[in-house]
Amino acid sequence: MFNNTAIENTGLDNHTSNTAGRIVNKNGLPNIIKTGLPWYKRISSFHTLINLSLGKYLALIFIVYSIINFVFASIYFVIGANGLGLPQNTNNTFKLFTDCFFFSAQTLTTVGYGRLSPHTLPANIISSMESLIGLLLFAVITGLSYARFAKPNSHIQFSNNILLSPHKNGIALMLRLVSTKNNILTDGEAKVTAAIPKIKDGKLIKDYFSLDLEISKINSIPFNWTLVHTINADSPFANYTYQDFITNNVEILVFVKAYDEQHSNQVLARTSYTANEFINNAKFKLMFKASPDNLHTILQLNKLNDYELL
Amino acid sequence: MFNNTAIENTGLDNHTSNTAGRIVNKNGLPNIIKTGLPWYKRISSFHTLINLSLGKYLALIFIVYSIINFVFASIYFVIGANGLGLPQNTNNTFKLFTDCFFFSAQTLTTVGYGRLSPHTLPANIISSMESLIGLLLFAVITGLSYARFAKPNSHIQFSNNILLSPHKNGIALMLRLVSTKNNILTDGEAKVTAAIPKIKDGKLIKDYFSLDLEISKINSIPFNWTLVHTINADSPFANYTYQDFITNNVEILVFVKAYDEQHSNQVLARTSYTANEFINNAKFKLMFKASPDNLHTILQLNKLNDYELL
Amino acid sequence: MFNNTAIENTGLDNHTSNTAGRIVNKNGLPNIIKTGLPWYKRISSFHTLINLSLGKYLALIFIVYSIINFVFASIYFVIGANGLGLPQNTNNTFKLFTDCFFFSAQTLTTVGYGRLSPHTLPANIISSMESLIGLLLFAVITGLSYARFAKPNSHIQFSNNILLSPHKNGIALMLRLVSTKNNILTDGEAKVTAAIPKIKDGKLIKDYFSLDLEISKINSIPFNWTLVHTINADSPFANYTYQDFITNNVEILVFVKAYDEQHSNQVLARTSYTANEFINNAKFKLMFKASPDNLHTILQLNKLNDYELL
Amino acid sequence: MFNNTAIENTGLDNHTSNTAGRIVNKNGLPNIIKTGLPWYKRISSFHTLINLSLGKYLALIFIVYSIINFVFASIYFVIGANGLGLPQNTNNTFKLFTDCFFFSAQTLTTVGYGRLSPHTLPANIISSMESLIGLLLFAVITGLSYARFAKPNSHIQFSNNILLSPHKNGIALMLRLVSTKNNILTDGEAKVTAAIPKIKDGKLIKDYFSLDLEISKINSIPFNWTLVHTINADSPFANYTYQDFITNNVEILVFVKAYDEQHSNQVLARTSYTANEFINNAKFKLMFKASPDNLHTILQLNKLNDYELL
Repeated sequence: MFNNTAIENTGLDNHTSNTAGRIVNKNGLPNIIKTGLPWYKRISSFHTLINLSLGKYLALIFIVYSIINFVFASIYFVIGANGLGLPQNTNNTFKLFTDCFFFSAQTLTTVGYGRLSPHTLPANIISSMESLIGLLLFAVITGLSYARFAKPNSHIQFSNNILLSPHKNGIALMLRLVSTKNNILTDGEAKVTAAIPKIKDGKLIKDYFSLDLEISKINSIPFNWTLVHTINADSPFANYTYQDFITNNVEILVFVKAYDEQHSNQVLARTSYTANEFINNAKFKLMFKASPDNLHTILQLNKLNDYELL
Repeated sequence: MFNNTAIENTGLDNHTSNTAGRIVNKNGLPNIIKTGLPWYKRISSFHTLINLSLGKYLALIFIVYSIINFVFASIYFVIGANGLGLPQNTNNTFKLFTDCFFFSAQTLTTVGYGRLSPHTLPANIISSMESLIGLLLFAVITGLSYARFAKPNSHIQFSNNILLSPHKNGIALMLRLVSTKNNILTDGEAKVTAAIPKIKDGKLIKDYFSLDLEISKINSIPFNWTLVHTINADSPFANYTYQDFITNNVEILVFVKAYDEQHSNQVLARTSYTANEFINNAKFKLMFKASPDNLHTILQLNKLNDYELL
Repeated sequence: MFNNTAIENTGLDNHTSNTAGRIVNKNGLPNIIKTGLPWYKRISSFHTLINLSLGKYLALIFIVYSIINFVFASIYFVIGANGLGLPQNTNNTFKLFTDCFFFSAQTLTTVGYGRLSPHTLPANIISSMESLIGLLLFAVITGLSYARFAKPNSHIQFSNNILLSPHKNGIALMLRLVSTKNNILTDGEAKVTAAIPKIKDGKLIKDYFSLDLEISKINSIPFNWTLVHTINADSPFANYTYQDFITNNVEILVFVKAYDEQHSNQVLARTSYTANEFINNAKFKLMFKASPDNLHTILQLNKLNDYELL
Repeated sequence: MFNNTAIENTGLDNHTSNTAGRIVNKNGLPNIIKTGLPWYKRISSFHTLINLSLGKYLALIFIVYSIINFVFASIYFVIGANGLGLPQNTNNTFKLFTDCFFFSAQTLTTVGYGRLSPHTLPANIISSMESLIGLLLFAVITGLSYARFAKPNSHIQFSNNILLSPHKNGIALMLRLVSTKNNILTDGEAKVTAAIPKIKDGKLIKDYFSLDLEISKINSIPFNWTLVHTINADSPFANYTYQDFITNNVEILVFVKAYDEQHSNQVLARTSYTANEFINNAKFKLMFKASPDNLHTILQLNKLNDYELL
């Protein structure tokens, strides 16, 4: 199969000069900013909350918890001291408000110690609503917290560099990846796409090429997996020298999917390589070795990016 | 491949004149009413509750919560004041019933302040059952509330119109779509079907045709995706003019599926176009541009339906 | 493709006479009893609990709840009345035990009214363990209750009978199915297998044949779907008469899968037809019609099994 | 198709002599040790917690629960006795600390009896934070406990041995498997790979071969499923004798996947056979028989490994 014709189905623009910068960021996400709709129409609350850093997520929960308690505290405060069974003639407003605030917290979390409890009809109505709201709120927080914890993750790391290596009497592009944790990945599949800028009708546009791989599907990924694209006559890089990759500002997009057994879920990993990440005439060092007792194989994760210049 | 023969596997009726109205509503759901079984056999409680609007869902929970509390309040009321440790000789029936009601609420939500608590064997038995029921009830509500919140959603919007555009020395049908939010869609796949009414044996029936697309599968959908059906000799619309689409009451059914990485789930989007949504001799305007600093690409969501008449 | 050779990959036995009875029960599950391991090694607690009837499931939870409370009540009882802050010199053993029992229930459900509360070190240790156990127990019950509620279900019903119908100048086997509820099924796929008993080497064995269907894959299932197997020269039933189906004790196994959008999940439906469910020379009546206002299509679910003898 | 050429896409090493021991452990997991990163970068907490034995999992929860309570108890202790409404002048430090400890437990689990409750601002602030932390902690524990309980499991057991059996005028490798529990598996698929060590350039390396199976895909797995690899001219084992398997230290890797209907999930099973598990010239005994009443088929699970030497 000849693959040195540009492909059209990347979903990335290739007809215009209206794009700018690298196509895909190093973390694999597209380098795009969406505008033209108000922020709340551009934000999926689920996707945002699931991707928020842990610190921001906890801070957000803390803020929401405080705001809700503040709102209910205000209501209990307006209802008055006797609503919570406190002495009516208190003139310590701060003490009364904080009592209302913490009664609210005890109701929202359903801890309900009972030192403070609703004594009047209005206080009873509000607090019975609040405990229901608390259960619904923590229903979503419970689900979300666990979903964040259990979020499918390939734990795949890519080598920092992509190498131009001698391979079978020719040259090949090589990058490698490894699953760094105690997850078991099966049915791996890799797709590597090259974005090559060119001038057409006076405009700088990009052509996309799907790169043939020696092994693009793999039964399992217990070891490192080296993706090898041989630069032959069918490659879009036929006759390329190292300098051509740099000069032409080639970007290599890598997309890997695999099946995580314990999650029973598909997991993905993506990255991209731009000019300064190409290394000429180098090859990767072996990452694994036999254990001293010769009973196991040892995979050395710290050697993921180790290569030797030839 | 010749695609100008009608297809049979749409799942939609094409043999009879027993259907009426548009086939698929604008939101992509079939325009069908099911009858012949009692409502509770036609309703999947899960599907109904997951699709209910947020307001109705919360109202329903509130009503269920109130009813359960009312039922248990009645039982505690029958058991009597001393069951909850209240003075036996109260003659304030309303006060006693509301106390029973809010004790029930405190038990169901497991907030259990303790100002009211079961003192007798019957009250203990009922309240220990109620707190168990509360846990089971809120188990389902917890799962459902989170499932609603995390419901897979493509966040795909379609252009309002389908255009007849000049394309490669001919004419093409064009519609476009974009994912409007911060979700990442990969492995997009589009299926476009045309429903063309015709008279057969004196009856008005419909023929279905699968429309060839220039690009029907796409690796990712970070930009807008324009679905292009070239009207050539193989198209069911060969020799159609704009007026033919209108006169023949053609309906275009669009079905898109993609994979949402963060959800690890497949998401779908559907719509349909009928006569008044066809625009003759127009083409879509570009939706994206380079950012001022030339480092990113800006996707302008508000331009989804912008076209120019030619 | 010639399909009148027996297939081997059904997973059902076809080499021996060691099977008995119908192969697949009417509900689609295999007619097999597993023995040879103790029951607890043959039972998957998850599968059992997810498939238990609602009544049995609730009864089981009630029993487990009672047993755990009984066990903890016994411990609190042994610790003694002062552990829960009750007067030491009670000689009402029953009252003390029931107090222990309901204190346990209040702890397990975390309702914790506080009229009874742990006062001594042993009571505190036990009750702090019990509330932890309660949370873990209700964690599993919460997940399970919701999983039961949200269990993927195709809501597909099959016609009671399979018909021998005139079809395109010949005869066809026809059965039909419909999704009875407000779920949306897409990407339907049907597999129909015939099991035909025969005598080989003096033993009664079964041959399996995959039956060609006119439409075995369908884009969506908004209407009823009729599965049609034309009996032609390639069919294992070439030259069969109605009587042959009965005499030969043919069993027809039906397996349907589809994708449920709202569940984002695959759903399945299965059934089997044996001799007394074959109807000769009949055809199904139409199940749908235009609505009176001619704007919608009405699908009459009660007509699923309506056929007319010809 | 000729399959007697080595395959490259197993994901297992076959170019070097840097691996040692069996490739895949008896439980199907790769025999690999990962090093080179600190343990917390090699451990996926989700995967670890989901695979931990039940005993260790419960012990871990108990330890975490105790530590958190200890930390909060220390804080309440520092705040002082009056924070929890206890008499200020207690000189029983142990009693005060244990009260703080169990108040913490009552707050974390939200049982909140109320005999001890926060009376001062610092105690209120800390306890309102603790109940929030408790809800978040038990959110993850709830999800995790249920995920452990509902973890997809094929419940497939493999025969202990792999047999060299006479088969169709030749010899075949045979192993069998059965789903031992009340789960329903459909769409079974088996992949069997042989790892054959050989000397190349003076180094001991391994070649991998995909073994053709008589039936590698199966519609459902209600019975036992025997995987049969016929040793013919196309097999990598052409002309092998039993002794060759032993001498060459052949390892057979088995990978089975199927679809679990009730889980709506894919399930996997894996194992490997090494030299001492090969049995020469034997065949498996039938595992099933007709029930005494001739209405059902009985599958005898204890006969999974029963074979007879010929």
